[in-house]
Amino acid sequence: MMKIKAQGIKLGAVILIAEITFILIFAFLGDYDLSSLPDNPGDTSVHLTYPMFQDVHVMMFVGFGFLMTFLKRYGYSSVGVNMLVAAFVLQLALIVRGFIHYDIIGGQRFQVTIGEMLSADFAAAAVLISFGAVLGKVSSLQLLIMATIEVILAQLNEYIGLHKLHASDMGESMYVHVFGAYFGLSVARVLYNEHVHGSRKEGPVYHSDIFSMIGTVFLWMYWPSFNAGAAEGHEQMRAVVNTYLSLSACAIMTFALSALLDKNGRLDMVHIQNATLAGGVAMGTAADMPVHPWGALLIGSVAAIISVLGFKFLTPLLSSRLKLHDTCGVNNLHGMPGLLAGISAAVMGALSSPDTWGDSMCKIFPAREGCGDNSTDLNRSALEQGGYQMAALSVTLAIAIGGGILTGFILKIPFLDAPERDMLFDDQHSWNVAEQQFPDVLVESEGKHEKNSMTYM
Amino acid sequence: MMKIKAQGIKLGAVILIAEITFILIFAFLGDYDLSSLPDNPGDTSVHLTYPMFQDVHVMMFVGFGFLMTFLKRYGYSSVGVNMLVAAFVLQLALIVRGFIHYDIIGGQRFQVTIGEMLSADFAAAAVLISFGAVLGKVSSLQLLIMATIEVILAQLNEYIGLHKLHASDMGESMYVHVFGAYFGLSVARVLYNEHVHGSRKEGPVYHSDIFSMIGTVFLWMYWPSFNAGAAEGHEQMRAVVNTYLSLSACAIMTFALSALLDKNGRLDMVHIQNATLAGGVAMGTAADMPVHPWGALLIGSVAAIISVLGFKFLTPLLSSRLKLHDTCGVNNLHGMPGLLAGISAAVMGALSSPDTWGDSMCKIFPAREGCGDNSTDLNRSALEQGGYQMAALSVTLAIAIGGGILTGFILKIPFLDAPERDMLFDDQHSWNVAEQQFPDVLVESEGKHEKNSMTYM
Amino acid sequence: MMKIKAQGIKLGAVILIAEITFILIFAFLGDYDLSSLPDNPGDTSVHLTYPMFQDVHVMMFVGFGFLMTFLKRYGYSSVGVNMLVAAFVLQLALIVRGFIHYDIIGGQRFQVTIGEMLSADFAAAAVLISFGAVLGKVSSLQLLIMATIEVILAQLNEYIGLHKLHASDMGESMYVHVFGAYFGLSVARVLYNEHVHGSRKEGPVYHSDIFSMIGTVFLWMYWPSFNAGAAEGHEQMRAVVNTYLSLSACAIMTFALSALLDKNGRLDMVHIQNATLAGGVAMGTAADMPVHPWGALLIGSVAAIISVLGFKFLTPLLSSRLKLHDTCGVNNLHGMPGLLAGISAAVMGALSSPDTWGDSMCKIFPAREGCGDNSTDLNRSALEQGGYQMAALSVTLAIAIGGGILTGFILKIPFLDAPERDMLFDDQHSWNVAEQQFPDVLVESEGKHEKNSMTYM
Repeated sequence: MMKIKAQGIKLGAVILIAEITFILIFAFLGDYDLSSLPDNPGDTSVHLTYPMFQDVHVMMFVGFGFLMTFLKRYGYSSVGVNMLVAAFVLQLALIVRGFIHYDIIGGQRFQVTIGEMLSADFAAAAVLISFGAVLGKVSSLQLLIMATIEVILAQLNEYIGLHKLHASDMGESMYVHVFGAYFGLSVARVLYNEHVHGSRKEGPVYHSDIFSMIGTVFLWMYWPSFNAGAAEGHEQMRAVVNTYLSLSACAIMTFALSALLDKNGRLDMVHIQNATLAGGVAMGTAADMPVHPWGALLIGSVAAIISVLGFKFLTPLLSSRLKLHDTCGVNNLHGMPGLLAGISAAVMGALSSPDTWGDSMCKIFPAREGCGDNSTDLNRSALEQGGYQMAALSVTLAIAIGGGILTGFILKIPFLDAPERDMLFDDQHSWNVAEQQFPDVLVESEGKHEKNSMTYM
Repeated sequence: MMKIKAQGIKLGAVILIAEITFILIFAFLGDYDLSSLPDNPGDTSVHLTYPMFQDVHVMMFVGFGFLMTFLKRYGYSSVGVNMLVAAFVLQLALIVRGFIHYDIIGGQRFQVTIGEMLSADFAAAAVLISFGAVLGKVSSLQLLIMATIEVILAQLNEYIGLHKLHASDMGESMYVHVFGAYFGLSVARVLYNEHVHGSRKEGPVYHSDIFSMIGTVFLWMYWPSFNAGAAEGHEQMRAVVNTYLSLSACAIMTFALSALLDKNGRLDMVHIQNATLAGGVAMGTAADMPVHPWGALLIGSVAAIISVLGFKFLTPLLSSRLKLHDTCGVNNLHGMPGLLAGISAAVMGALSSPDTWGDSMCKIFPAREGCGDNSTDLNRSALEQGGYQMAALSVTLAIAIGGGILTGFILKIPFLDAPERDMLFDDQHSWNVAEQQFPDVLVESEGKHEKNSMTYM
Repeated sequence: MMKIKAQGIKLGAVILIAEITFILIFAFLGDYDLSSLPDNPGDTSVHLTYPMFQDVHVMMFVGFGFLMTFLKRYGYSSVGVNMLVAAFVLQLALIVRGFIHYDIIGGQRFQVTIGEMLSADFAAAAVLISFGAVLGKVSSLQLLIMATIEVILAQLNEYIGLHKLHASDMGESMYVHVFGAYFGLSVARVLYNEHVHGSRKEGPVYHSDIFSMIGTVFLWMYWPSFNAGAAEGHEQMRAVVNTYLSLSACAIMTFALSALLDKNGRLDMVHIQNATLAGGVAMGTAADMPVHPWGALLIGSVAAIISVLGFKFLTPLLSSRLKLHDTCGVNNLHGMPGLLAGISAAVMGALSSPDTWGDSMCKIFPAREGCGDNSTDLNRSALEQGGYQMAALSVTLAIAIGGGILTGFILKIPFLDAPERDMLFDDQHSWNVAEQQFPDVLVESEGKHEKNSMTYM
């Protein structure tokens, strides 16, 4: 009991110190969007960006939060700790991005714009994906340490990809999904605990699976806003349409594969909850590119196939052979479909030409030949652009895996209160919840209580 | 077991073939919105239509999906198969609408615009309403066949109503709600199975009813977007206000009627989940017409009365006397309130005049006298317009009922795997779900497991 | 049984009479937004205000509705009666506001604009906050009477505050949150019933707590729309950013405090469900003021501290010592954070100057010196403005507490069917729900049913 009490004090103290630090950094280095400062007309068009930002916000807090509630005894942590981690990352990401994108040393202050808030949500997405790989196996304190390291590395990686390699990634399937998935999987590998096998707590009850579907449908519906939120003009329109079509194909193909591969011909809820979303990931990098409606449908269909096959065959194999236990199957939902996204966009880059792409080519690939502005007068050929897209994907994988392994070892520090064997996949590790409140044991406790119904109140 | 395995293979194969067909059709005949093609400035104003489109999207996937989760053992199918059917229809409807509204034969390509995506969601709504009538009594394969026939007929009916009869239906209460309800009811009648009576599975548990309320509130809140999404200018403003007021009156009148009619004076959850929404349906056709705020309140109030009376008296009667078993009561939520919508708009049409309607008259009824443009130089009197509104309602009923009966017989083909007696209203027909996961049997299985709590992990 | 039947008739009759009255008042005194009348071009820009209105709408119906579903046997009432009360208030508030803000006597008609619909949602918020204080302890009929009195008093108070005292309150933390909380608490105090103590029904089961989190996250995500919905230009941008930052800090500080204060170092679900939202309330009044990002983070952090301390120490004390039983802890979520909001804004007012505020000063405080327009040529100093802000807060408290006490005594009339001892916190007071449907007794009834599984259907 003393140990748990200490665990609470540590968590509380770390958050307190973090929040005080955040406030001080914002006080000395941060500011509003200059356009929301008095006497500055600027861009006050909240209505242009805000609705899509809110859709993405729903994806982070309802989408990820509820998607992970499928475990029968880990719902408080899924939706609750998801909120803690996301809200923590929002503030941290604004600061980290400030240091990267503003001349802080030169006296500039970083700005909190709606665009930056959208980017902060993207930063949260990467961390929440990693959370999925280690769900039920780490403490809140471990998660906050993981989040801190991951946000810094992911933002650096995004900076390298966008501003050094000039690799396009509109829906950030490389910089968010691939990064988050392989970072999280690397952490999970290092933290591998043999006791995860055979736990009866690592499973759903009927209603926890339906809670999870709340997350699925909100992610599915609002994904076009994720892939198009940062775009403009007809690139934005195309990102909406491509993502919508990719997801539609992915959803129905997931049902097909789930039924075809099952030994009894029945559908599997895990596939429906997760693989239906792979089309959003797979479309992310090329979202604003002219892949044409049929191309979007094809990408979504392939994503479904990869994702269901992954859940069916790869995840059990990774767990039993490679000691890589992936609680939510993020490799199947974010990892492999993210690789597909990166490769699709590299192919598109290698095929890009001003004849078929029009003015979109230079907007999407400013480093292509003939697009030269001051910052990126690189005159790349189409093939070169394709190569740089692959380079960005490779760099992302390298930083994610390397950073994840390093982070995993850091998280092993005993100070961070990893849950012990009997507290895996169990909210009782860190929440006040009586055993008899759980749906799978409601019977016994309430059976007693019914016998005493005379003295009920 | 062989039979179930075969069932999965059939479902998977049908979806696979459908998706390959969709991709080929989109490749040869479809394209982006021309305005999202490179070098075409066009209409890139995503922000004007996208937020309302997303609201309607939420109605389809969260609204309909969760509304139907009230059954204690049919939640996976409700929210999961709802997603399958809706995503299938989205793609199909874009194609069917392409053939109807574009000169495909003449070499034109159909376009995927946000407006078309909204129309595809409307097409999904009709099918999901029909799904409600047969919920728990058909297989996924039957549903996909039903959806295919229904989308084609519904789009043809809409074309006849809008472009031949020039009957206005802004929120498509005729072309979507009346069509979907009576098509589905006709299917349900033909598929009547006496074993539906007395099944203990056809009922809720406490938490399945609360899941259902997630669907109710999202449908209720976003209905103004459904009725106004395709409108513009002050017609759009009026459609928002009318629907909002109609729903407000409908919600409270539903509580009044539910309490007044109950033999014990208590509220009935079925009424609250469904009849509160009838005001959205009843306001649909005249949504953009100047019915005035009090008129909207009145329409919503009458819708509540009709709907609660329907649930209370008509549904049991139809089931016992006419062998018409309507699982979700779609006749009460979509059927009769849809008729009210059609009749209200016919009355409004018969009363329309340029003096009181101003420029709205020609925008809403382009076939009225003095509105003549090239396509509709029909010079109808007010009374004639009212008559044509009723004609559109009648045609809708005829095509829906005729098409539904035909479809019902097609769905009887044994190949389509209708669930047998013991699998009615049961997810085990097509999902991998262990008996002990269901909320109503959690006790027994987990009781055993508790006895073994020493060896828990 | 006769008594319950009578209860239903009374509820139904009151709603019926109310709705007929509403329809008559709208018919004689109400109209559309003039801009949605025919032949009036006017402001038809639905897309500017509608998305934020819909966010606020979601907060009312999903947010408040589901937040209160935490009780194990009161979920129907929480989400259902929440809908009844909110839909009732929407119509009532449009009328009451019409009488206050339009020259009805002079023949003017009040208009239903999207701005007024937003204000009606704000009016509903106040009543739903009060509902939280008395949740499980009053009948629907009592709630409707309470709502009627409260809406009138709250709208009068808002009128005094905004138009007589010229006190700014963009997110209405004073006029909505403080008012709703202390009105509701005063009602709860007068209605105090000693039998609330020790009821086993006043608690959650695991899944009811997760339903409650649906409410929490939607309130949390969309709160920037609540605080910024009525603002414009860069004041609106600032209101979004301030509220977003305040909530982010509040969320993580709630976790810190919850863990630090718990005797076992564990997190408490009640804190996460509620105190994470206090940052939205605390930021409400000064939402559009230039408090700077660090100021918003600080306000959110302080709100979390106040709120968690309140739940931990004050609520039990009020209940045991002062006979003030606050079911949802509205004092901690809306009351004290609302006071913090009012005081923060008063401090900001006292510090306001044209040098640092620019043109925002006169937009936010039109009564400040140098801002004189015809209506408010008051030339207040900064300190005076601060004083008037405190005056508005004091008037709000006085009217809320006085009105609440009065209302409490009115609600004691036996005609209004307050639930008796054994029906506290129990849906069976007013809903048709079988005992065996409740999650906490599912075992016994379904245990029997399993024994009869041979005759299952």
